[in-house]
Amino acid sequence: MPLLVTGSVGIDTVSTPLGRAENVLGGSAVYFAFAASKYVPVRLVAVVGEDFPDEFRGILAAGDIDLAGLETRPGSKTFRWTGQFEGDMNAAKTVDVQLNVLAERSPKVPPAFVDSDAVFLANTHPTLQRELLAQLSAPKIVVCDSMNLWIANERESLVKTLRLVTGAIVNDDEARQLTGQRNLIEAGEAVLELGPKFVMIKKGEHGALLVTADGAAAIPAFPTKLVRDPTGAGDSFAGGVLGYLCAQGSADTETLRRAMVRGTVAASFTIEDFSLGRVRNLTRAEIDRRVDQFVNMLRFE
Amino acid sequence: MPLLVTGSVGIDTVSTPLGRAENVLGGSAVYFAFAASKYVPVRLVAVVGEDFPDEFRGILAAGDIDLAGLETRPGSKTFRWTGQFEGDMNAAKTVDVQLNVLAERSPKVPPAFVDSDAVFLANTHPTLQRELLAQLSAPKIVVCDSMNLWIANERESLVKTLRLVTGAIVNDDEARQLTGQRNLIEAGEAVLELGPKFVMIKKGEHGALLVTADGAAAIPAFPTKLVRDPTGAGDSFAGGVLGYLCAQGSADTETLRRAMVRGTVAASFTIEDFSLGRVRNLTRAEIDRRVDQFVNMLRFE
Repeated sequence: MPLLVTGSVGIDTVSTPLGRAENVLGGSAVYFAFAASKYVPVRLVAVVGEDFPDEFRGILAAGDIDLAGLETRPGSKTFRWTGQFEGDMNAAKTVDVQLNVLAERSPKVPPAFVDSDAVFLANTHPTLQRELLAQLSAPKIVVCDSMNLWIANERESLVKTLRLVTGAIVNDDEARQLTGQRNLIEAGEAVLELGPKFVMIKKGEHGALLVTADGAAAIPAFPTKLVRDPTGAGDSFAGGVLGYLCAQGSADTETLRRAMVRGTVAASFTIEDFSLGRVRNLTRAEIDRRVDQFVNMLRFE
Repeated sequence: MPLLVTGSVGIDTVSTPLGRAENVLGGSAVYFAFAASKYVPVRLVAVVGEDFPDEFRGILAAGDIDLAGLETRPGSKTFRWTGQFEGDMNAAKTVDVQLNVLAERSPKVPPAFVDSDAVFLANTHPTLQRELLAQLSAPKIVVCDSMNLWIANERESLVKTLRLVTGAIVNDDEARQLTGQRNLIEAGEAVLELGPKFVMIKKGEHGALLVTADGAAAIPAFPTKLVRDPTGAGDSFAGGVLGYLCAQGSADTETLRRAMVRGTVAASFTIEDFSLGRVRNLTRAEIDRRVDQFVNMLRFE
């Protein structure tokens, strides 16, 4: 099942208690694509400016990521984000953000990508999410992310997007903000009433929760002492989830539960280094070993 | 393996967003005893005042709890706690506390209890924990709890107690305060250096973490929408853990992992109602059904 992702490709500068990385490759679509591409080929739809470094293009090209939908727009500048993680590193503080090319018209889906069976709409304006979706012929699995900004200011548009998706992958604060429910199972159920067949709620170091019509299932995060940079953990989680769903060709509850394990493991690698440092050359065998380790940790009789 | 618990028996008044319970049976040793007694007979060592209601004595006697070590001290008053849970209900706010008989001399271990093979030292002054322990002939499994007050003000005494125990069951804030480590695996490892062979770190709605020389293992909380009163959840957790360890007659890593599941399930029942409302008449069959449900939720291939 060909998997399309649309989202940001950017240049990040990140500080954490364990170091600093300046002008490195980042963006939601990039983290997603690297995680998902360990399972299936990924089609990237995104736009960068003419300042986008060749080195970054090389990093993307070395992965199993089809760049036919990566538009380089002359006269425009690439999206830039400067962030900082402190203390428990559960949330990034945005120090500076330059939308640049992301504030202009969005990229088009190239003809070769129109038949994509699965699509991940990374966080952006919910109207843009629907515009992209409308360009696809007949996707079977559509999953979206969102953020506090759109939940607060573009709720009506976001609700329209949620009506069109198979699933939503959001964090705990977003689930609560969207639904007004404090309990995450109740929040998940309230999201299901808006349209999606499933919702996965990411809780950072506290794990993740799946809510479907069959009920709720929780898993912890992969226990680790090595957290150098949490940037991209959530998008890597979504990439592991969607990559696995596409490899299995299913989004039933049992497959979703197993996909949530793959998302958790994908995120656990991403946070071990800055930018794509850990996941660039990560092999499927390394991933599968950690999946086994995690599954064994959760096996009780 | 006969299991002894020493801790508080008190009269609680608790408010939560879902209701209020006035002058109900409470106390760390009570919650622990009810959870543990579903697995093995429990010996209670505690002290109450002459105002301790006969009704509460009846509730305790109806469980599989040996009250030979429950001293009723004439002229003294029972421990009273008034607490409030708000918002996410992750932490209780103490509105009023009257130590009463807990501020006097501690109860003695009756001769019939001296041969106890396992003991849980619920939270109290660490010197009192050691005094109680010294009265036992040769306990094989000794587990203690503690709290921020002793960690801050009686660290030296607490460290002496930790040198004598098999395991510690503490919450995440306590583990961090005790060790100065923010990462909970590192905090757990630092606790192990003080003496215990294992540490279980309770994270409330976020689950629990086991740390031993074999490594770290995490589980989520049992996902539930029904949280009426979190009072006693941590002591119930410890009761489920110790009850299971004693029933198995072991505290190896594999048994500890399984015990952590029983602790999680014990806590999940306690929080469904005020005081002992849910767990008083809870059957072992109900517990085992929920254990199966939880274990299946965490089984992936």
